[in-house]
Amino acid sequence: MILGIDIGGTTSKLGLVEDGKVIAHARISTSGHTDDHAFADALADAAIALRQAQGDKAFKAVGIGAPNANQLTGIIEMAPNLPWKHDVPLARMMADRLNVPAVLGNDANAAALGEWRYGAGQGFDDLLVVTLGTGVGSGFIVNGRLVLGSAGNAGELGHDPIPRGRLCTCGRQGCLEAYVSIRGMRKTYAELAGVGEKDGILSQEGVLPIAEAARAGDTAALRTFHDTVDLLAIGLANAVCATGPRRIVLFGGIARNGELLMAPLRDRFQEVLLNIYRGRVDLTVSALPDDDAALLGAAALTTL
Amino acid sequence: MILGIDIGGTTSKLGLVEDGKVIAHARISTSGHTDDHAFADALADAAIALRQAQGDKAFKAVGIGAPNANQLTGIIEMAPNLPWKHDVPLARMMADRLNVPAVLGNDANAAALGEWRYGAGQGFDDLLVVTLGTGVGSGFIVNGRLVLGSAGNAGELGHDPIPRGRLCTCGRQGCLEAYVSIRGMRKTYAELAGVGEKDGILSQEGVLPIAEAARAGDTAALRTFHDTVDLLAIGLANAVCATGPRRIVLFGGIARNGELLMAPLRDRFQEVLLNIYRGRVDLTVSALPDDDAALLGAAALTTL
Repeated sequence: MILGIDIGGTTSKLGLVEDGKVIAHARISTSGHTDDHAFADALADAAIALRQAQGDKAFKAVGIGAPNANQLTGIIEMAPNLPWKHDVPLARMMADRLNVPAVLGNDANAAALGEWRYGAGQGFDDLLVVTLGTGVGSGFIVNGRLVLGSAGNAGELGHDPIPRGRLCTCGRQGCLEAYVSIRGMRKTYAELAGVGEKDGILSQEGVLPIAEAARAGDTAALRTFHDTVDLLAIGLANAVCATGPRRIVLFGGIARNGELLMAPLRDRFQEVLLNIYRGRVDLTVSALPDDDAALLGAAALTTL
Repeated sequence: MILGIDIGGTTSKLGLVEDGKVIAHARISTSGHTDDHAFADALADAAIALRQAQGDKAFKAVGIGAPNANQLTGIIEMAPNLPWKHDVPLARMMADRLNVPAVLGNDANAAALGEWRYGAGQGFDDLLVVTLGTGVGSGFIVNGRLVLGSAGNAGELGHDPIPRGRLCTCGRQGCLEAYVSIRGMRKTYAELAGVGEKDGILSQEGVLPIAEAARAGDTAALRTFHDTVDLLAIGLANAVCATGPRRIVLFGGIARNGELLMAPLRDRFQEVLLNIYRGRVDLTVSALPDDDAALLGAAALTTL
């Protein structure tokens, strides 16, 4: 039994993983703690309560997925979307509190491992998993191993430059993530519809209102999907040139828009792909249950 | 002793490699043969003559670097710059003729292995080698292994999309190679100077005339280097996001322009690099002897 932890901007989830399934869940708020030590205490308390509810069966390791986590150091490095703006050595903090080995990994790498071990990436030794949510993350599997890079921070597909100039949260212009994220798609819709970023259908959160409007034939919403597909196709084609994956798995909120996204994306991707890769790489959507994917991925970090 | 062979558009070179050094050289013309079988015969004859000149000492393997070569299949796949437009299974053709194992690999991958084994990439398990010549090629080393990709054709950095629209030889628009190759730089100079593509200083071949003009203060030549540096920096920054190399080694004709290229490139590269990689990846130029680098790389293919 492994404990998987998924650190999110708002909520942090815990799950006991056995045989590739999450058999018990818990969650705590990520914010509202005095400091990072108090947060780690709360996380450990929740883990112990979860274990006790399972008859105090021991877990042999903790896997933690978090934004801006560096697997080589076990540190969450100044994550802009978490309450602590400094470095947090969460792997060691949890290992100390729970007395088991802890592995901390980037949430997108955790997703990639989860898909590779338990999901749509099973059996693919050259795989790319792209997470499309608040931000755009990615995890590359190459030659049957996760790519960490020399500094532990490889796989930042969201910051690939694309031929547009919108300012990205990283401070540069024209990153993929500035367009192909929930925030990016909402901004594109606002521009195309000529509305404020919280007006009209955008008064609802996420990309669901844009998807609903597109399905109802709204021109700005349809063009938002069209533009997003176009840029995502370029970003994916770009990544294929680097590591030549056999399969790309899309994961996260934006990927859950079904054929509204995937049908045009498959076509456009094959069009912009360098000829030597055509027909040699397929695109698919995560098949893992939404709520458990991040926890399974976090647990998979411990079995590297 | 290993036989290294470097198949070029005009000339094919052979070298006997021992202890990381080329101890004997030969060359034949790549074109002018009846067909690919006649070419393989000529290559085998040259190899045997080379071996005999060394007291008939046996070589234990043949490594062949060639454009458009697929290492997984041992086939040169319809190379646009070679005389044969069909698939040529050169690994098997040479193994049959020389009675030793033969490994065929992409010339850029061979360069990467050569740098990794014998050159500026020694000791780096996460490495990117970029060849800047007639075309732009690349070889990625990740987790201490060459990245072949699932179909054997990973590492096509030259066809990364960049924010410009020039037509590339691959049929798409805006590939890095359309700008950052010898052909691309000559085209940029012709556009900036308002001259024909073989007029003025471009009546001389290669990029040397542009480099000389730039050193003499010619505005169009200086801007050609400036633009090339800008786009190459973006392409390299892009690749870093994928695999997170610790070092990038530049190789080939364009890389031999010294600080005219490297000084502004180092600055611009650090500027466009995603913040988390800054100071964590360095840029250097191949340190292998020009004439032997491709042969050493080809020989290194056999020791994978």
